[in-house]
Amino acid sequence: MKQVTMLDAADARLLIEFAIGAADMLSVPQNIAVVDASGALLAFHRMDGAKPYTGDFAIAKARTAAGLHAPTERLGEIALPGQRGFGLNTLRSGDVAILGGGVPVTVSGAVAGAIGISSGTVHQDADVANRAVQQFEIQAASAQTIG
Amino acid sequence: MKQVTMLDAADARLLIEFAIGAADMLSVPQNIAVVDASGALLAFHRMDGAKPYTGDFAIAKARTAAGLHAPTERLGEIALPGQRGFGLNTLRSGDVAILGGGVPVTVSGAVAGAIGISSGTVHQDADVANRAVQQFEIQAASAQTIG
Amino acid sequence: MKQVTMLDAADARLLIEFAIGAADMLSVPQNIAVVDASGALLAFHRMDGAKPYTGDFAIAKARTAAGLHAPTERLGEIALPGQRGFGLNTLRSGDVAILGGGVPVTVSGAVAGAIGISSGTVHQDADVANRAVQQFEIQAASAQTIG
Amino acid sequence: MKQVTMLDAADARLLIEFAIGAADMLSVPQNIAVVDASGALLAFHRMDGAKPYTGDFAIAKARTAAGLHAPTERLGEIALPGQRGFGLNTLRSGDVAILGGGVPVTVSGAVAGAIGISSGTVHQDADVANRAVQQFEIQAASAQTIG
Repeated sequence: MKQVTMLDAADARLLIEFAIGAADMLSVPQNIAVVDASGALLAFHRMDGAKPYTGDFAIAKARTAAGLHAPTERLGEIALPGQRGFGLNTLRSGDVAILGGGVPVTVSGAVAGAIGISSGTVHQDADVANRAVQQFEIQAASAQTIG
Repeated sequence: MKQVTMLDAADARLLIEFAIGAADMLSVPQNIAVVDASGALLAFHRMDGAKPYTGDFAIAKARTAAGLHAPTERLGEIALPGQRGFGLNTLRSGDVAILGGGVPVTVSGAVAGAIGISSGTVHQDADVANRAVQQFEIQAASAQTIG
Repeated sequence: MKQVTMLDAADARLLIEFAIGAADMLSVPQNIAVVDASGALLAFHRMDGAKPYTGDFAIAKARTAAGLHAPTERLGEIALPGQRGFGLNTLRSGDVAILGGGVPVTVSGAVAGAIGISSGTVHQDADVANRAVQQFEIQAASAQTIG
Repeated sequence: MKQVTMLDAADARLLIEFAIGAADMLSVPQNIAVVDASGALLAFHRMDGAKPYTGDFAIAKARTAAGLHAPTERLGEIALPGQRGFGLNTLRSGDVAILGGGVPVTVSGAVAGAIGISSGTVHQDADVANRAVQQFEIQAASAQTIG
């Protein structure tokens, strides 16, 4: 038997709150998805003005980051023609996202879930995802120290 | 051109809050999905203890209720063998939900979106969905009267 | 080699015009799809007020009627539990429509295409589809007699 | 609540008419799809001689242009290997079109829908789509001024 550490509903709310804060700083409304370590959707929030069509992108980014234990931004490099990960993104019916905006959430050294952001430019999406996860991991670390 | 009224992010948050309240009353953790009038996902919240596997059921229920302007519970009756809607649920790759738990949200006589609930019994899912939508529609109506 | 008789763009326009007329008589806005003998989409028209979500149903109905050379209404009977067509509707990823509203268009004894109607009740959908095809076949027959 | 402006049936007919005109000028029969702001199909017309197989391409192009608020031609540049959007086109089961021929329709500054063209060369498809949308937007603007 093993124990898997997973984000819960409170964690997901916090991540979404942090992502909204980061998106507001850039003045870019975003789709925000949070998945647990198994890739199952925990929470989703579409900010007013975000493109509805790209909601699925946010989920795919979060799922990929959680599943591959890597930011989706880095996968885009590995999947370039001629690189060893070429073709990665067409697997799982094309649902493997290799655009920036998916970032795993690591707790005590293990991936406990991930966030996925979409609707801005890929650069903005990655920026919002990174900021939200950083803020979350700092808070989680300090909570562990205090608690 | 035509104008379509759709739920926004604040509406979605309210619906999720009402659904959490109704689920807590039944002591049944639930997956809660809110979609806009076009069926696009607006918000999702998985309560701690809800079954991750059924998250997609909540989204499918919400989408179906918004798309067909009917509670999914009623569709189950229409789709019985021998009824005129028999076979409805296999369309769209089987993503048409005909189990209780999807309820449209009507604003000023038009469907503006829907909620979908999953993880409890079908009866509990439908109960939570109905309560959340009733509470939302009462509040929306009173807001219009005051505003 | 063989020749396959197929509806063309002018036929499709005529079928859509006839379907709009029949839908207007019932005061029910409809999604109208016309496919050729191979099931490929020739024309689609969503009347104002018709449910966008069910657009795919109209296409599936038309495709099924053209492909199986039968009104979809009749398929619902064959696919009942215990009947020999039980399970028919889950084939092709569930895209085989067995609800009323799909009707083949027969020209000189051969299926040249089909129409599919959705958004009303199943009864209304079937009614509109039947009327449009009848009107079309009468016109086609008289054009052949005169021409 | 929010209001979303969407193309209606009359707008779709006009766009198809303009696209037929542009296709006739190039002597290239085309598949023409029009979707609303949510990506739902509003109208489809296959001109005689257009390739039936590519009908779905026209729908995917229109849906992508409406969903991403950008001409699909531009997406092809963003999705080049080494660019930030690399991998975009495999998302949503590969239904994100990044070939020319999908163009959003903007009304009063907001995307109200899109057109998608297929069957010619990609250059011809994009040309027809651009001409149809330009003609439509000019007419819509002058109608607003007069009305």
